[in-house]
Amino acid sequence: MLINKLGEFGLIERFRRAIRTDTSVAVPSGDDCAVLRFNRDSYQLFTCDMLVEGVDFTLRDKPELIGRKALAVCLSDIAACAGIPRYALVSLGIPPGFSVERIERIARGLFALAGKFKVNIVGGDISRARHLVIDVSVLGVVEKKNLCLRSGAKEGDIIFVTGSLGGSIRGKHLKFTPRLKEARALVKKVKVSSMIDISDGLTQDLGHILEQSKAGAVIYEDLIPLEPGARNLKEALFMGEDFELLFTLPPAEAKKILILKPRGFKPIGEITAAKQGLSLIDRRGRQRVIKPRGFRHF
Amino acid sequence: MLINKLGEFGLIERFRRAIRTDTSVAVPSGDDCAVLRFNRDSYQLFTCDMLVEGVDFTLRDKPELIGRKALAVCLSDIAACAGIPRYALVSLGIPPGFSVERIERIARGLFALAGKFKVNIVGGDISRARHLVIDVSVLGVVEKKNLCLRSGAKEGDIIFVTGSLGGSIRGKHLKFTPRLKEARALVKKVKVSSMIDISDGLTQDLGHILEQSKAGAVIYEDLIPLEPGARNLKEALFMGEDFELLFTLPPAEAKKILILKPRGFKPIGEITAAKQGLSLIDRRGRQRVIKPRGFRHF
Repeated sequence: MLINKLGEFGLIERFRRAIRTDTSVAVPSGDDCAVLRFNRDSYQLFTCDMLVEGVDFTLRDKPELIGRKALAVCLSDIAACAGIPRYALVSLGIPPGFSVERIERIARGLFALAGKFKVNIVGGDISRARHLVIDVSVLGVVEKKNLCLRSGAKEGDIIFVTGSLGGSIRGKHLKFTPRLKEARALVKKVKVSSMIDISDGLTQDLGHILEQSKAGAVIYEDLIPLEPGARNLKEALFMGEDFELLFTLPPAEAKKILILKPRGFKPIGEITAAKQGLSLIDRRGRQRVIKPRGFRHF
Repeated sequence: MLINKLGEFGLIERFRRAIRTDTSVAVPSGDDCAVLRFNRDSYQLFTCDMLVEGVDFTLRDKPELIGRKALAVCLSDIAACAGIPRYALVSLGIPPGFSVERIERIARGLFALAGKFKVNIVGGDISRARHLVIDVSVLGVVEKKNLCLRSGAKEGDIIFVTGSLGGSIRGKHLKFTPRLKEARALVKKVKVSSMIDISDGLTQDLGHILEQSKAGAVIYEDLIPLEPGARNLKEALFMGEDFELLFTLPPAEAKKILILKPRGFKPIGEITAAKQGLSLIDRRGRQRVIKPRGFRHF
């Protein structure tokens, strides 16, 4: 069988079944970050992302933005767990004919974002490769009481997103700011029941929350905030790389912050029982079941 | 300027100059692992390595051995700091036409080595790519008193290597056992003044110790243990991928263990003043200066 046929998530599921971890691992693979026991009050968060030329960026993109994105996608994973990023390693696979100036511009974009979020770049690896590959791994920290996971959404919880969605491929995917500050501000104010970053598309990532929380959801077309660059609702529902946060709050917590009329995030729906699956209510009030889908590598 | 011209180490040096780290980083990039402050008695070690198809392995190699090597090279870095590996993340760039069976065999080889050394595989990333790329990052731990670095070798120290050297490309590079046990046994018995793993070749990696310790060295042709698969001394001096440990001991420490007639490692020379550079004494007692060199990606 070829990878294309099994699919990205099928392959990940097979790997997960083959892995055993010891009790020092609080949450193994399957969330935005691995969660490791650290000290009495905190966990460490550990995550990595690989960017590949022709998949996640092209050589026509501004080099600084390519490097920036390579770190930003990892920071978005740390944000999804409401953590603070601390250290990063950067592995570069570089074609031999690459110019030093171009690779230095890529590094500059990455280092600038690291500086902005006080992330220490502590090392890396450089290898010859046939096309440009950048793999970044990030180590962060989160207080136990603030850790957010994909599991934990309950029937009746309100679903929120930060920012707006759709059309990211036309620019935002290279320029987005990981929602670290928003996530930290949020967990200081309210008790978040689940959180994920939208990397593969709203419905697919909401699908991960529903699966791991054993829940269903209803979302409202009217309430989904469209990015100015988005062409239609479909792009907001099924297109990847928004890198916004998707999270749920118990009703009492939701009220606490909705009365503050927050500008950074908006309610888009509600968690239901698992058997109801995921459905969308359109502008005319009609409800239809939708299948979570979005970007897949295979 | 193209990367080929600046070279791998020139590029790394440029990156290092551009990076700032805070005081929580005890040793930033430039050693086998980054060393992070952790608790009163221990440091965390953080390292990554990228393996690329056609550079570090070919698709004719046994898949289990490819996966095994991807983790083993990182564990060798942890061994060089005398640490204990704890957690690993695995990023895979996979061509779409790859078979599931082959990628599962690669994973199986990696997981088996992880099991052997009690390393928790806690997550990763999967991406489409044009050729197979495997990037592994490992988080480990080491007691402060046991940490070994490339710096710290002093004039008069004895230079040792574990195992034997040369000809690794003909098989050992896929099958070597990272010298984790040997490194731990060593630091429990003696005070090691410097250590590195031989990944690029004996003289190039000894060169790193000499540079960071501001020292010179003399090594003896007679004493260099040749791998059975090695064709000649040159392969032991300049060929990469031995993944043995190279370390130095102050004379009193060296005596302590040489009287035990250790089988796992052998003295090969002595640290001298920096101005003497690196030289080799051949079988007839003639001394000649040699330039550290070995495997370079560019």
